[in-house]
Amino acid sequence: MSKFDSYFLMTPSDAIEYSKEKLTLFDADSQLECKEIGDGNLNYVFRVWDPKTKRSVIIKQAGNTARISDDFKLSTERIKIESKALQLEERLAPGLVPKVYRYDEGMNCCVMEDLSDYTILRQALLEQNIFPQFADHITTFMVNTLLLTSDVVMEHKEKKEWVKNYINPELCEITEDLVYTEPYHDNNQRNELFPLSREWIEREIYGDATLRFEVAKCKFEFMNHAQALLHGDLHTGSIFVRENDTKVIDPEFAFYGPMGYDVGNVIANLFFARAHAEALKDQKSQAFIDWVDETIVTIIDQFKEKFLQAWKEHVTEIMAKEPGFDRWYLQNVIKDTSAVTGLELIRRIVGLAKVVDITSIEDPNLRQQAELKCLTAAKRFILEREHIQKGSDFLAVFKGEKIHE
Amino acid sequence: MSKFDSYFLMTPSDAIEYSKEKLTLFDADSQLECKEIGDGNLNYVFRVWDPKTKRSVIIKQAGNTARISDDFKLSTERIKIESKALQLEERLAPGLVPKVYRYDEGMNCCVMEDLSDYTILRQALLEQNIFPQFADHITTFMVNTLLLTSDVVMEHKEKKEWVKNYINPELCEITEDLVYTEPYHDNNQRNELFPLSREWIEREIYGDATLRFEVAKCKFEFMNHAQALLHGDLHTGSIFVRENDTKVIDPEFAFYGPMGYDVGNVIANLFFARAHAEALKDQKSQAFIDWVDETIVTIIDQFKEKFLQAWKEHVTEIMAKEPGFDRWYLQNVIKDTSAVTGLELIRRIVGLAKVVDITSIEDPNLRQQAELKCLTAAKRFILEREHIQKGSDFLAVFKGEKIHE
Repeated sequence: MSKFDSYFLMTPSDAIEYSKEKLTLFDADSQLECKEIGDGNLNYVFRVWDPKTKRSVIIKQAGNTARISDDFKLSTERIKIESKALQLEERLAPGLVPKVYRYDEGMNCCVMEDLSDYTILRQALLEQNIFPQFADHITTFMVNTLLLTSDVVMEHKEKKEWVKNYINPELCEITEDLVYTEPYHDNNQRNELFPLSREWIEREIYGDATLRFEVAKCKFEFMNHAQALLHGDLHTGSIFVRENDTKVIDPEFAFYGPMGYDVGNVIANLFFARAHAEALKDQKSQAFIDWVDETIVTIIDQFKEKFLQAWKEHVTEIMAKEPGFDRWYLQNVIKDTSAVTGLELIRRIVGLAKVVDITSIEDPNLRQQAELKCLTAAKRFILEREHIQKGSDFLAVFKGEKIHE
Repeated sequence: MSKFDSYFLMTPSDAIEYSKEKLTLFDADSQLECKEIGDGNLNYVFRVWDPKTKRSVIIKQAGNTARISDDFKLSTERIKIESKALQLEERLAPGLVPKVYRYDEGMNCCVMEDLSDYTILRQALLEQNIFPQFADHITTFMVNTLLLTSDVVMEHKEKKEWVKNYINPELCEITEDLVYTEPYHDNNQRNELFPLSREWIEREIYGDATLRFEVAKCKFEFMNHAQALLHGDLHTGSIFVRENDTKVIDPEFAFYGPMGYDVGNVIANLFFARAHAEALKDQKSQAFIDWVDETIVTIIDQFKEKFLQAWKEHVTEIMAKEPGFDRWYLQNVIKDTSAVTGLELIRRIVGLAKVVDITSIEDPNLRQQAELKCLTAAKRFILEREHIQKGSDFLAVFKGEKIHE
């Protein structure tokens, strides 16, 4: 019998006790310390460490209500999905996620590699740090986790079992509401508009029936297209970096959906970093912006290149071997990527969940300028998605330039 | 303790004993009779009846190997899916499926309404019987079971649980192989070509790269588009009829897939009945053919009409309420319907599972004529699917006429 046989929400001292009882990492007589460092809405994150040996782990535990409100009930199933997804991603894209040491179904917690010597990419980008290998790492992560979990590569019966295991109703609902619905409707209580942008948003977002129609198509694509196992929340806050390393974290939104959802999230959040740097307008900014631009173009073009290469190496589905089918399939992934880039840009400015890249711009006029630039581009990413295919197209749209077809 | 506590394959005398022990339908002292009447590949079907009271039931039991070969292992999960689907379909489309009296998870059997006074529609059509209400019944069945299980109508979290419960890997694999793969490849052992059609098929089906490319697209649509709960095998052999009644049976292939798969199966198999009647060329045939033509046109046009009406009444998804979205969505369902009509026409002539409508045509030249007419139309249904939208378009394509847009 152990106090950890059945679920309760741990305190830091419970996490220390848990570590001594359940893990082999620490010495029996070690004096462990622990701090709760969670800053998301849904989970508790304990860092447990031995000051003498410097060994440490992260214990992530799922609560059954959201941290922001007890009224917001959530199943703890998501920590199972996160743990299984991390283990799978490590297998498909080695070295690009934290290692999982233990998943505890009873306690709804996952014990994993401590990445305290890494920085969250969003924060690092706000500080205008550059990561020359990021494009290479993230495209490998996306190509491997997406293409290799699709029907192009997987045995179809096994793939269907995975679809079943990763059905994720509650977390998909959050995305369906926050990304695909609320930002397009004036009458919901959760949108929060920056006052100087309000008039434009009311006219150009709420007031645009064509945009809503296209978003409706995208919403059904998100809900019904069980193409590949997505990370499902791949923004710059879900990525840890240090000089030559990248680790993707927090795949609790994982489910079988359209590949472009992950790629578009990465791209949109890099544009937010760019918009932030533009608002600063200092000497250093230009070099950073140049790197972001190059990174965005490289991510799209390298994703496509690696995707076609991996297709060639791994394709098993006989009908998918038809000459040219790979390019047709990829074209649709990039089309979805463009739409999701637009959807993410809009929902982070209009909807409930803002990004600090934008909200931290202090000068109201510069913030308005940044928001309207992102939103203007966002509409084109959605409405012109059929024609946005190259890395340079993505950059051109953001800059308000024509696409060269 | 009962001998029926754990699974074994029943004999007719077991089925009688089962009926007396488990069902309340029969009197304790009744002298029951039983006959095994299954003619499919996968299941055992016992008719149990009391000659005195005329009461009767069907007990359908799933074997764990196919009846045609012990080497062909199959999970018994399909009888669970069939039982649950029948109960659901009765709720969504009352009166259009046999009533389920009992689903027995241990014995892997389903006890249901006996429809011995009905005829299988395929057989009835070979005998050139007409069913004036069939189009009305089958369109109600399809609109209600398809639209009402989709994200347009269902609460999305519940819908995802249904997707999970109806994941059906083995039976989907049969369709993926027999419908979407084998008929397009000369090198598999299972295709069987009618000698007089061989040359045409080698040139026009095996030899057509554009066709294979389009079929590859359709295969991914079938595998990945979790749009609605399909029947999954809705040909004329899965439909019982009598003068004013229609009952859809055998939903063991049920899973979440593209709506057009069901509609296209109905249409293609009506074309087979038409091709059979054309080959007979007698006086009676023309009236029957006229009824088939009218029925095909009506099914498409009435499906569309009822679909839009049901959408208006039942839509809950806010983004789906955008003006015109219903028509855009339906247009895609009909596009898929066209493709599936073509796929089913091809696979039943080229692939392993033939239809008696064609194989029973005795005159070799008439059979060749029927096959090539079906196959020629089939290619257009696939290649021109973007433009085939009205009931009259479907008929025009089958007749080799132009579509009037």
